[in-house]
Amino acid sequence: MIFKTLNDLVGLALQKDRRKLVVAVAQDEEVLLAVKAASEAGLVAPILVGDQLGITAAAAKSGLDISRLEIISIPDPWQACKYAVRRVAEKKADILMKGLVSTGLFLKAILDKENGLMNEGLLSHVAFFESPYYHKILCVTDAAMNISPDIQEKTGIINNAVKVYHRLGIALPKVGILAAVETVNPKMEATVHASMLVAMQKRKQIEGCVIDGPLALDNAISMEAAHHKGIVSDVAGDADILLVPDLNAGNILYKALIFLGGSVTAAMVVGAGVPVVLTSRADSDKSKFLSIALAAATE
Amino acid sequence: MIFKTLNDLVGLALQKDRRKLVVAVAQDEEVLLAVKAASEAGLVAPILVGDQLGITAAAAKSGLDISRLEIISIPDPWQACKYAVRRVAEKKADILMKGLVSTGLFLKAILDKENGLMNEGLLSHVAFFESPYYHKILCVTDAAMNISPDIQEKTGIINNAVKVYHRLGIALPKVGILAAVETVNPKMEATVHASMLVAMQKRKQIEGCVIDGPLALDNAISMEAAHHKGIVSDVAGDADILLVPDLNAGNILYKALIFLGGSVTAAMVVGAGVPVVLTSRADSDKSKFLSIALAAATE
Repeated sequence: MIFKTLNDLVGLALQKDRRKLVVAVAQDEEVLLAVKAASEAGLVAPILVGDQLGITAAAAKSGLDISRLEIISIPDPWQACKYAVRRVAEKKADILMKGLVSTGLFLKAILDKENGLMNEGLLSHVAFFESPYYHKILCVTDAAMNISPDIQEKTGIINNAVKVYHRLGIALPKVGILAAVETVNPKMEATVHASMLVAMQKRKQIEGCVIDGPLALDNAISMEAAHHKGIVSDVAGDADILLVPDLNAGNILYKALIFLGGSVTAAMVVGAGVPVVLTSRADSDKSKFLSIALAAATE
Repeated sequence: MIFKTLNDLVGLALQKDRRKLVVAVAQDEEVLLAVKAASEAGLVAPILVGDQLGITAAAAKSGLDISRLEIISIPDPWQACKYAVRRVAEKKADILMKGLVSTGLFLKAILDKENGLMNEGLLSHVAFFESPYYHKILCVTDAAMNISPDIQEKTGIINNAVKVYHRLGIALPKVGILAAVETVNPKMEATVHASMLVAMQKRKQIEGCVIDGPLALDNAISMEAAHHKGIVSDVAGDADILLVPDLNAGNILYKALIFLGGSVTAAMVVGAGVPVVLTSRADSDKSKFLSIALAAATE
């Protein structure tokens, strides 16, 4: 698949059956705007779970007509989250989306041992960027969920992102393991993790991708910078996925690409069996719409 | 001072007496090109220390006329570094620059307890960025020297950067302490450090600047993003200096701004009493030239 712009996600999603997207605690004007736009574009069929009066009022603020959308009235936020999760667990919905509820409570419903969605693995965040300075879509992971992942968790984070690429039709994505340097330094854990992840891919402990690291960011995305350092690698200069050392580095990179790099983003949380859309108020309308498209294209 | 473009550094440097810049192990074509350009622009008076034959040969490769530059022939790299450092220690030069020698050996001469340049404090890296997406120059520190600074070292890193701003005529730079989130989380050391640094500034343990944190990158540089989070602060949306949590985050931000953000940079190492210019092969010619201008403007 050619994956040069995030709009390609819309086309991909439209090739599939329309996915059912269930919104937990849907009484949020901005979320309703994004969901309605995605519905009108034919990407998803929304199910709005939450306080019916609140939902109607939120829609009215923007003059949104939601009369044709399914609404399940459950005023209590925790019960609404539980219901939305159950609907997904029972395969009666395909995508889960957070509304006007704290991330903590929303995730609690997903992570619940008895009634949640996690069988194995871990939740991680994948953010896709369309940058004016890169020749293809770049995926940064994990910029939002895991604070300081150990090697086991990093393996899970890579597997989660690679699965998304496979769903997008890209069989062997190139994974760059980021660090501050491109050499191994026992005092820098990210470089040690990188060596281990490369070995694990060689020994087929991680499959479905090509991995190289440690790489400084410039080596991972600029062929010229890689040449300067004498790095010969299938990944250097052409990475699809960037695994960041930790949440600090990931979040700062994510924000830099958007606020100091002119990038557009689409993001979701993966690892729960179905895509989970968690937009924040600071996201642009376009980014919220594209995040729903990403979820629909990869479910 | 208005500090909107890095070219302002050239004007500032030209207002001062021409500074003597001593290059350790100068037989490097790219370093000679940058030094010669800075010399011709009237920014510095270079002193080239190294293997005279090598220096002449490196200059000849680019057809550079260095006949009017002072050359001190010391073929041994370690002796050349020691000589260059001594020249600075004896106030017979104002700026130190690394040539064709490993960073390790070069720093060893600076850090040497008997004959080096360090009295107190620590060496740290300051990188100034001119970004098409920000309304003023942004300084990122420390993206190159300290791997995982503790609170004491972070204080030193801030003091080093603040001193540079004072030299540039900016009396009270705004320092944003970056983390992945804008709230304090005891599991995230960067947010704990941020609270401490804010308190230290309030109690005048750190002076000459305004500090706020923890701030996610978007809160620090976008007023709109700060508003979304309800952050009221003298720094949010208008930071001059960004203190990064550690080297991983700093280096990734540094590289993102250049390679995925269209920024131009000027950088140097501070804390040694005089500015230290350490360009790398991957730096653009413009960035090397501006780094010398930065050193000359702030010495």
